[in-house]
Amino acid sequence: MRIDGVARRTIWLNQDGWSVSVIDQRKLPHVFETLTLEGLNDAARAIQDMAVRGAPLIGVTAAYGLALALRDDPSDAGLDEAYGRLLATRPTAINLKWALDHINEAVRHHVPHTRAEAAYVTAQAMADDDVETSKRIGEYGLSIIKGLSEAKSGAPVNILTHCNAGWLATIDWGTATAPIYMAHQQGIAVHVWVDETRPRNQGTFLTAFELGQEGIPHTVIVDNAGGHLMQQGQIDMCIVGTDRTAANGDVANKIGTYLKALASYDNGIPFYVALPQTTIDWTLAHGRDIPIEERSVREVTHIIGVTATKTIEEVQIVASGSAAANPAFDVTPARLVTSLITDEGICAASRDGLLSLFPERTT
Amino acid sequence: MRIDGVARRTIWLNQDGWSVSVIDQRKLPHVFETLTLEGLNDAARAIQDMAVRGAPLIGVTAAYGLALALRDDPSDAGLDEAYGRLLATRPTAINLKWALDHINEAVRHHVPHTRAEAAYVTAQAMADDDVETSKRIGEYGLSIIKGLSEAKSGAPVNILTHCNAGWLATIDWGTATAPIYMAHQQGIAVHVWVDETRPRNQGTFLTAFELGQEGIPHTVIVDNAGGHLMQQGQIDMCIVGTDRTAANGDVANKIGTYLKALASYDNGIPFYVALPQTTIDWTLAHGRDIPIEERSVREVTHIIGVTATKTIEEVQIVASGSAAANPAFDVTPARLVTSLITDEGICAASRDGLLSLFPERTT
Repeated sequence: MRIDGVARRTIWLNQDGWSVSVIDQRKLPHVFETLTLEGLNDAARAIQDMAVRGAPLIGVTAAYGLALALRDDPSDAGLDEAYGRLLATRPTAINLKWALDHINEAVRHHVPHTRAEAAYVTAQAMADDDVETSKRIGEYGLSIIKGLSEAKSGAPVNILTHCNAGWLATIDWGTATAPIYMAHQQGIAVHVWVDETRPRNQGTFLTAFELGQEGIPHTVIVDNAGGHLMQQGQIDMCIVGTDRTAANGDVANKIGTYLKALASYDNGIPFYVALPQTTIDWTLAHGRDIPIEERSVREVTHIIGVTATKTIEEVQIVASGSAAANPAFDVTPARLVTSLITDEGICAASRDGLLSLFPERTT
Repeated sequence: MRIDGVARRTIWLNQDGWSVSVIDQRKLPHVFETLTLEGLNDAARAIQDMAVRGAPLIGVTAAYGLALALRDDPSDAGLDEAYGRLLATRPTAINLKWALDHINEAVRHHVPHTRAEAAYVTAQAMADDDVETSKRIGEYGLSIIKGLSEAKSGAPVNILTHCNAGWLATIDWGTATAPIYMAHQQGIAVHVWVDETRPRNQGTFLTAFELGQEGIPHTVIVDNAGGHLMQQGQIDMCIVGTDRTAANGDVANKIGTYLKALASYDNGIPFYVALPQTTIDWTLAHGRDIPIEERSVREVTHIIGVTATKTIEEVQIVASGSAAANPAFDVTPARLVTSLITDEGICAASRDGLLSLFPERTT
């Protein structure tokens, strides 16, 4: 999608043919900067420090990270170490393991001196595949927005989203946002309520930014406001992403998603989860088994903003005498999810629903 | 309660016998300052700009504001104008109207030159009454915490609260916090999960501050986290305040309360609302009729914190290109509320429940 009118992806191979660049998402929307990754450490740090985030982008970044690591040490030991190092960066995102396993399989049978090249080829293919995946999710989700738009005789469809499952979380298009971008491109009137998504404010900093760059009408609200807006009939549908989907349709997503799903259910508003099939963890029977990452409390106690003199500054908002806690995800039970929108189609959030799209998983 | 070990109230008459001081709550917890009110404008501005907030404290501040106004103009026209000016400061808090009506009745039959004195006497009595009201709420609520503590064999009772229904919202003790302070004083182990309460962060800035000053263990969390903590069994009860209670037990409280009530209900965790009877609006059959204040979007787009160089600075967190919205309250339906804890006792959140405590309201 576009930034300042220029079409971009979130990660790309540089002209030198080996170093990789990403959009540094930590200073958005205030400053647009890119970050060059030249080795395993750069890639691992970019994921861990959340210069890149979002399940699909984490996966592709890890894949390129493995390629960069193999340039330096293509031995079995080097491959194992890089795999372990990258896997440990973020515990909740299932894509990370999927991407690492995928690339590990693709390169391990190579002799060491061709491994790095094989890894680059695989990483690039993964990036391209992800774009196609997002587009397919977008097309399936578009049908839902179209239906709501027709039911409203073309009045703007009001869509609430939480966190950033936008193109910045993927390679392009996004997951939850792909249907929105496609609707907008087709001239369907939409308006997006953007949850700010404390503590990292990905809604404010990333989703509002990317929607704005594409000219999509949107309004930022605090995470507390969504329930009230639903009670007032100001939300027609919710759509969010997921970091991991259990085999029964439970979804782990950014902390607070569960609360919005409860409110949607209570108000009879459809609640959709958009996901690439790579976020489905078929080995997990229930969402309660998904490990939930506890992140630094500094994310709660401090916040970055722009001062009156236009400098970017981090300010402390919780007084030093108070403890804080920062669970980063919660699990939304499948019973609260209207449908899952995958790259293979739309299905009920249930084991049967998922198996109807992925019958090969029936065992 | 105490600040830096000194017992205080939130509002008091100064030694001069006419000017009134309040704790300026806008810079807490970073700076402790008081504000002196010398006339109607000072009082109205203190309420409107939220130097004072919280239904009971707003009521008493308005009462003193009327007294200050009558010092300057004790005529019927002066009384009417001051009443109107103060009533318009905050639309959701029912206490405000109750306090103004109460004092209006107490002074109107006086000849003009004795009105101001009568108003001061009434305002002081209202402040003292409010302290007694909080204590009674505290004693009723204490029985609930005691029961949970016994059921947990003395392990800390984990209590979630939203916004600040603490002593800073009242004259002393608080409403939702009164049972917590009393439990702590009796040696019952408690731990409080403090919702930060965006956009004004009253949880972070006020509740965490006052709990800390009283030495009560507490942990600040983002508003998104409560549902997850409930799913994980880390919350034993919720207790919040209310700005207005409808006759059927629906409660209007700080935006986001409804989401926590939904999560409590979904997880079988008791959800209590603590309230002085003055917040009950017997004329409102349903919560949906409660007017919801829309506040400045600047509360969403900007936030105050402490910089690395220890200066207090307001930073912008929503980029200028994005719209924002700021509904300040939501309505929690009575069906999600376990019980109302009033100064007359504990009752079901229903018309029948309220009438069991206030039979004189049966018509």
